[in-house]
Amino acid sequence: MFEVYAFATPNSVKVTIALEELELPYTLHGVNVRKGEQKTSEFLTLNPNGKVPVLTETEETGQTFVLTESAAILVFLAEKTGRLLPVTGQDRARVFEQLFFHASGLSPAFGQSGFFQRFAAAPEPIALERFSTEANRTLHILDRVLAKSRFVAGDEFTIADIAHFGWLWRRSFPNITLDDTPHVARWYADIESRPAVQRGIARIEALVPYGVSSVKQDDD
Amino acid sequence: MFEVYAFATPNSVKVTIALEELELPYTLHGVNVRKGEQKTSEFLTLNPNGKVPVLTETEETGQTFVLTESAAILVFLAEKTGRLLPVTGQDRARVFEQLFFHASGLSPAFGQSGFFQRFAAAPEPIALERFSTEANRTLHILDRVLAKSRFVAGDEFTIADIAHFGWLWRRSFPNITLDDTPHVARWYADIESRPAVQRGIARIEALVPYGVSSVKQDDD
Repeated sequence: MFEVYAFATPNSVKVTIALEELELPYTLHGVNVRKGEQKTSEFLTLNPNGKVPVLTETEETGQTFVLTESAAILVFLAEKTGRLLPVTGQDRARVFEQLFFHASGLSPAFGQSGFFQRFAAAPEPIALERFSTEANRTLHILDRVLAKSRFVAGDEFTIADIAHFGWLWRRSFPNITLDDTPHVARWYADIESRPAVQRGIARIEALVPYGVSSVKQDDD
Repeated sequence: MFEVYAFATPNSVKVTIALEELELPYTLHGVNVRKGEQKTSEFLTLNPNGKVPVLTETEETGQTFVLTESAAILVFLAEKTGRLLPVTGQDRARVFEQLFFHASGLSPAFGQSGFFQRFAAAPEPIALERFSTEANRTLHILDRVLAKSRFVAGDEFTIADIAHFGWLWRRSFPNITLDDTPHVARWYADIESRPAVQRGIARIEALVPYGVSSVKQDDD
């Protein structure tokens, strides 16, 4: 049985979507990052990096396995079930290429752009320009990928789609729209229409009082 | 036969180190990011994201497989050879956890911190403080990991060590030292002493005239 520690954040929703797609049962625990619950000593025991999401699995021996980093959780769940990740070959390499493009490129650009637009105590023009430009640039790179294939790593839905979806779902944080990226828009609507994706989003949104979602930096 | 397009950058050196560790022959092509060669139309055909490193492999059919993202290249090479990445189990999950902690956490923090210290046209205090703090914070998270095990993902040397080594090797860019992180310092000396690591570094450094290395943002 899996336990998930999460909040309504771009990285958390990836895990609930994957669990719903894979039809794996789980218990969801809210960690309210607005209130700083990810920095409590109890939570830091679980993840010294102080970020959601965290997945735990209690084994038959009674030992608990704790895993952090949303994309590492996606790989773990995909390999455990043999689904959403090609087992061999170039299609598999493409999934990892997109997972790392997301983790190192699109995701930090979206997050930093949102931070400097919304949370910085004063406007800093170089940072604002740098991250806004990079968020839009990475989005257009993704649009070129999706001009050539239905999903981000080929013709099949994979964990790489789930990874990118997390931040595209929260694109209002960095004030990103899909108006100039028609292939991303088409793909987003496709992913969003999946019943398991809708269940994963609903579970995550139910963690927040009054249904308002948030983005904080303590999310990986 | 592999071809590698790279420069003396934190992400490029990961690939030459992995190829040397795995004893795979390769041809190395310099892409001088100081001169903007990663933005030429020829290079953008190879990687539309405009970043080094890129790995290509020409197959028996004559088709060329092109792979970007340094960590995806590490996973590809490890799975191709069955080395430097446990095949199953929790140790495998730990490697991915560290690969993604590096890609989404330590690596962007080091890169942005260096940028705002060195390349920004004017000092921006919030950005300077934000990324310097985050670079040091992620380094201390890694120190806690290395307090418990010889390598970053357990008792064995893996591709996760190669990933972290790339940016630790270039820690002067964000003005990071290992003075307060003794476990990282011990691990760094251990990794640096490996003959294959030294060969991987030497091949990369030979790409730069006069042996001076550089860090640019167009490196993934």
